[in-house]
Amino acid sequence: LTGALVADLREVVGDANVLTAVEDTAGYTCDWTGRFQGLTPAVARPASTAEVAGVVAACRRHGVPLVPQGGNTGLVGGGVPLAGEVVLSLSRLAGVESVDPAARRLVALAGTPLAAVEAAAAAHGLAYGVDLGARGSATIGGTVATNAGGLRFVRHGGTREQLAGIEAVLGNGSTVAHLGAPAKDNTGYDLAALLCGSEGTLGVVTRACLRLVPRHDERAVSLLGFATPEAALAAAAALSASMLPLDALEMIWGPTMALLARELPPGPPFDAAAYLLVECADLVDPLPALSAAVDSLAGVVGAAVATDGRRRAELWRYRDEIAPAIARVGVPVKMDVSVPLPAQRELAASVSAVVTGVAPGAGLYLFGHVGDGNLHVNVVLPASAERDVAHRVEDAVYRVTADLGGSISAEHGIGTAKLPWLGLVRSDAELAAFRAIKSALDPDSICNPHCLLPPPFTR
Amino acid sequence: LTGALVADLREVVGDANVLTAVEDTAGYTCDWTGRFQGLTPAVARPASTAEVAGVVAACRRHGVPLVPQGGNTGLVGGGVPLAGEVVLSLSRLAGVESVDPAARRLVALAGTPLAAVEAAAAAHGLAYGVDLGARGSATIGGTVATNAGGLRFVRHGGTREQLAGIEAVLGNGSTVAHLGAPAKDNTGYDLAALLCGSEGTLGVVTRACLRLVPRHDERAVSLLGFATPEAALAAAAALSASMLPLDALEMIWGPTMALLARELPPGPPFDAAAYLLVECADLVDPLPALSAAVDSLAGVVGAAVATDGRRRAELWRYRDEIAPAIARVGVPVKMDVSVPLPAQRELAASVSAVVTGVAPGAGLYLFGHVGDGNLHVNVVLPASAERDVAHRVEDAVYRVTADLGGSISAEHGIGTAKLPWLGLVRSDAELAAFRAIKSALDPDSICNPHCLLPPPFTR
Repeated sequence: LTGALVADLREVVGDANVLTAVEDTAGYTCDWTGRFQGLTPAVARPASTAEVAGVVAACRRHGVPLVPQGGNTGLVGGGVPLAGEVVLSLSRLAGVESVDPAARRLVALAGTPLAAVEAAAAAHGLAYGVDLGARGSATIGGTVATNAGGLRFVRHGGTREQLAGIEAVLGNGSTVAHLGAPAKDNTGYDLAALLCGSEGTLGVVTRACLRLVPRHDERAVSLLGFATPEAALAAAAALSASMLPLDALEMIWGPTMALLARELPPGPPFDAAAYLLVECADLVDPLPALSAAVDSLAGVVGAAVATDGRRRAELWRYRDEIAPAIARVGVPVKMDVSVPLPAQRELAASVSAVVTGVAPGAGLYLFGHVGDGNLHVNVVLPASAERDVAHRVEDAVYRVTADLGGSISAEHGIGTAKLPWLGLVRSDAELAAFRAIKSALDPDSICNPHCLLPPPFTR
Repeated sequence: LTGALVADLREVVGDANVLTAVEDTAGYTCDWTGRFQGLTPAVARPASTAEVAGVVAACRRHGVPLVPQGGNTGLVGGGVPLAGEVVLSLSRLAGVESVDPAARRLVALAGTPLAAVEAAAAAHGLAYGVDLGARGSATIGGTVATNAGGLRFVRHGGTREQLAGIEAVLGNGSTVAHLGAPAKDNTGYDLAALLCGSEGTLGVVTRACLRLVPRHDERAVSLLGFATPEAALAAAAALSASMLPLDALEMIWGPTMALLARELPPGPPFDAAAYLLVECADLVDPLPALSAAVDSLAGVVGAAVATDGRRRAELWRYRDEIAPAIARVGVPVKMDVSVPLPAQRELAASVSAVVTGVAPGAGLYLFGHVGDGNLHVNVVLPASAERDVAHRVEDAVYRVTADLGGSISAEHGIGTAKLPWLGLVRSDAELAAFRAIKSALDPDSICNPHCLLPPPFTR
């Protein structure tokens, strides 16, 4: 059976682009964190939309599902073959095809790394509104499929907000394309918005038309220390409500900064119970406005500010190196939740309480995009922890998040990792609607069937 | 049969809220332009989401489709019962329920007029990003269902860009709600984005959570005259590509302005072959930047500028009174098309050529949101024109638009009026996907079945 499928895939993409040996497929069957590991009968690497359609057709004919894979930088197990799926890698379908600076748009193939899109925009004096730490490897197709958020969400929103059009091969085998339409266009359902965030369950994104934004090269960054986390959150709310041209508004809780200072010194220039990292960007120097806003904040116990690139990078280091610092002390349980802005204080308190209750002795590292209500909760369990503690920690954190009207996935998606908890935030009616849409566009459930949509009985 | 349906509707919404007499339903069965006229067995006016669900259930039970209706300000026959549908009027389901100024959002019931949303936002020092001439009667549910564009699209995008969440009763009878989720939320398909622009074909919108934007009260408006339409379009492109804080960028072709000057004097302060109306809005006075930009434009033969409210309104009159001026000389064939910005020059030339070819002697009045590539084409036919000329004019205009990579509906939607031409801009694969989604969420085709989706055989 598998042999016939592999032969058909070779027919579509050529022998060299179907990988079957375990040593060749290993990079495609495991996510980069090492938490999600599967096996695949074949990795197919199409180089055109027609070849993608050929791979989808072959999988349908043989009744073998597929998992689309971009840069394999996902965090929820949505891009690896956990149940023996074929891997449809978009790595060869890459490149920025065209840039229209007047319309502020570009068209990129799905496998194009985010950094290549950023570079193409910059070459025309423009910028792309989504930026991620994984910009060198994360691909446009993957960021569309997962509606990636990232560092500049507070300014530009997520990937869906940047998406002007899409080309995709649907699970039903057909290719839909609506790439070059004008910005103002009311001619039917917005398939691009529907596929964005669908995590490969409806089809395979092959091209995207992306909106570009003006470049704001005048920048000011401030690292602020606060006497209490509550004071930092209150300051974040004040900054959010201000007219400052915010490009980022990040928070780092004291214990997280202390870990960073210990594992990846030097530490911050002042001690505090919590820190905010604020970046403003504008066409004119934003420093005066940022300084005035900072002066009006309560509870500030220390402040550093930078406008030149080198000093700005030094301050961003306190945010960028958190994940590496945590990785030095263990493999964390990584959670990515969000709540309405006013509930962040209660979320942080509740998360601390439930994690301490479920996993006494665990390291709890809080940080996040507080401008967006998005808290990253990293928990490093003690070596002595029982096997199910990680699951119980997740369960407890997701439940307090849902109780506060929050989202169990702010930006990472559901994937396979969060399936057990989707019912906490989505009703039976919504899940039924999701399944109906899935069946409509992917009637044989060929596309990423174990991702995003829990079977009806698991709720 | 109808008697049993009406009895069931009365059971759901009460006797007083089911209208059946022709004199009572007349206001619901004809659009405001008088072009679309139908009949209905009953107008049902639910006052709660549960009552909406009851009306949908009753229609399903009796196999009678329904047309959701908001302010009945649509322009494409999508909100009136052209095939004997029940009218589900949202007029009693109205009101702004809550405003969250910190999160810059509000929740409004579907029947809330746009102006009431604008007022609720203004009361908190904020604004709503979508504004229309019909703001007093157009409802939030209708603007969501049609993805309304309007006057400030160039700044804030359309309704879909403002939509943070939705509650709706789907055609399958279920109620889906996702209203209070945080801004960053990746937990499944974006039903709100899918229903936005679906023109009532998937379900009935009952509530919307809308994003609000900062108020920009420092405003400057300029009316510019140009030696040629080409010079005006080139200037519009230059202004679009600039960093000006544009709130509107409108163009009025010379013959259109001449009609306005004749029918609703006084005319503009200077004669020109084409005019631009430019509005900038910011936190600081935008006049210096606007003046500098205007000074750098080529082909300007006249300029007027205003910053105070009264003088700004005087300049906006040249845009706002175009439709009334046209109405004084006949019932126009109204077309609403868009193209990528660089194609606007060719679009205007091609439209002039084909309209003159199909309908010699017709009055052709061009104006539009040139900042968005959105051209309104109004054609007043001579009294002697044969009956099919209007259809042939539309056919010719939509074909040249499609040939330029444009949209046959920039903002009005497809409704029933543009059904014959949807295949010009959407492929068979896309139309099949639309139909599959329609069947998934509205399996009995109860919701607006004659709108938006052409039957497969008409292409």
